[in-house]
Amino acid sequence: MQVAFQGEVGAYSEEAVLALYIGASAVPRPTMEAVFDAVDRGAVDRGVVPIENTLFGSVHTNYDLLRGRRVQIVGELRLRIRHQLLVVPGTRLEDIRTVHSHPQALGQCQEFLRRTLPHAEATPAYDTAGAAKMVAACGTQDRAAIAARRAAQDYSLEILASDIESHHQNYTRFLSLASEGADLPPEDMARQQKTSVVFALRDNVPGALFKSLAVFALRDLDLYKVESRPLVGSPGRYLFYLDIEGHAANASVQRALDHLRELTAELKVLGSYAQGITMD
Amino acid sequence: MQVAFQGEVGAYSEEAVLALYIGASAVPRPTMEAVFDAVDRGAVDRGVVPIENTLFGSVHTNYDLLRGRRVQIVGELRLRIRHQLLVVPGTRLEDIRTVHSHPQALGQCQEFLRRTLPHAEATPAYDTAGAAKMVAACGTQDRAAIAARRAAQDYSLEILASDIESHHQNYTRFLSLASEGADLPPEDMARQQKTSVVFALRDNVPGALFKSLAVFALRDLDLYKVESRPLVGSPGRYLFYLDIEGHAANASVQRALDHLRELTAELKVLGSYAQGITMD
Repeated sequence: MQVAFQGEVGAYSEEAVLALYIGASAVPRPTMEAVFDAVDRGAVDRGVVPIENTLFGSVHTNYDLLRGRRVQIVGELRLRIRHQLLVVPGTRLEDIRTVHSHPQALGQCQEFLRRTLPHAEATPAYDTAGAAKMVAACGTQDRAAIAARRAAQDYSLEILASDIESHHQNYTRFLSLASEGADLPPEDMARQQKTSVVFALRDNVPGALFKSLAVFALRDLDLYKVESRPLVGSPGRYLFYLDIEGHAANASVQRALDHLRELTAELKVLGSYAQGITMD
Repeated sequence: MQVAFQGEVGAYSEEAVLALYIGASAVPRPTMEAVFDAVDRGAVDRGVVPIENTLFGSVHTNYDLLRGRRVQIVGELRLRIRHQLLVVPGTRLEDIRTVHSHPQALGQCQEFLRRTLPHAEATPAYDTAGAAKMVAACGTQDRAAIAARRAAQDYSLEILASDIESHHQNYTRFLSLASEGADLPPEDMARQQKTSVVFALRDNVPGALFKSLAVFALRDLDLYKVESRPLVGSPGRYLFYLDIEGHAANASVQRALDHLRELTAELKVLGSYAQGITMD
């Protein structure tokens, strides 16, 4: 099974791929667009992309790609983002002069760096896996990278300190995507099913959003996510993201979606899938 | 008037400060926490922080600071993020060997870089203003920075190419903050007023969110933003962010908030303020 992800080998997205699909072959792609395109064209079996993070919010650009490409959501996973201090084997803390990583990761490990490596210089890199790759390629013992556990394995680096982030509530939710045409059963029927939709209302009269949520509440269907996003250039108009309890093939979900269609100018069902697990 | 912002002189946040408060003195602070603390302690008159971006979503970490610190929202602004190619005066395109900027800005200008500077190396920096500062400090004509128009002025750089981003729908919404104690009238009474709240529901029975939105719909109060955020470590529990039509001192908003309090385990009114303008 070929599963595309965005980034370098050793990225957090690669961890998500291998947690979702044990034994799969993880295929790096340079951009999110390239991941969606590979899935759409059938060049890979699945694509795995981040959709929201507990600290940094929803990835609207990936919602735009979900709206625009012929893909469907077939699974999800919540992954705790744990940062590791990676070095060339044999390096000691006192050898380290520079620490390379993505600015966000450097920020999240500020406390550790201040306490443990007060004299090392923090140097921003394009991504965490790229920083690990560079430290490995360099091969000297005066530098370290902050990256995923996976990157240690991929680049034969040693974990000198683990889970060095200050904020322990950092989780990213990843979606697994298949091409739209594929007629797939949910990947885990034993788990609670959910359905993701994106829609725009027909008009912006007060209470229009309320009415659109009523179609679910009146059928006792719970919501797992609701988010409005202003449409730039159209003041007062919004896109809405919903995650709803139940599979779209379920009669009551189907009737609720038919009802929602009466109220919306645009509605796309992004997919039905089993509620994902959380990897701590 | 002293207004704190996060980042270096020349950051997009400084542009937001000067658009909101003409003639104010913009005070750089290294972290968001430091901006909130300066406002809370009364060390500055206002703080200006980003709260959501049209491509990258809500800044949950700033919502956490809004919940935790004694500050109130007193204004807002939407700022179009326009990237400029900044150089030491006299530099020509063909002189440029490296382009420095934040990874996100480099990504957003990829098309321009590929077309116009195919041989220049893109080098990630901690932030856009820091990249401009570095190019100015270096003083050589073999490098450029991608940063805000403001940074050209602050570091005496020349704009060699303007608005070089591919994605023109990139807007950041900034909030202006004052200390909680201050008894302030809204800064622009002529404009539509709005109120921001954050709350957690008492229980997660299906329809609880629906009921909490009903308190506004039943009073014909429009919603400008609704967003759920899963509470990490408490499966099935959420925080909700709402922006509501009207000032909290308005009788019907007040009654709706009292009604909402009956349904919530936690409710904080983050402030009432005039609906902001958009700076294109």
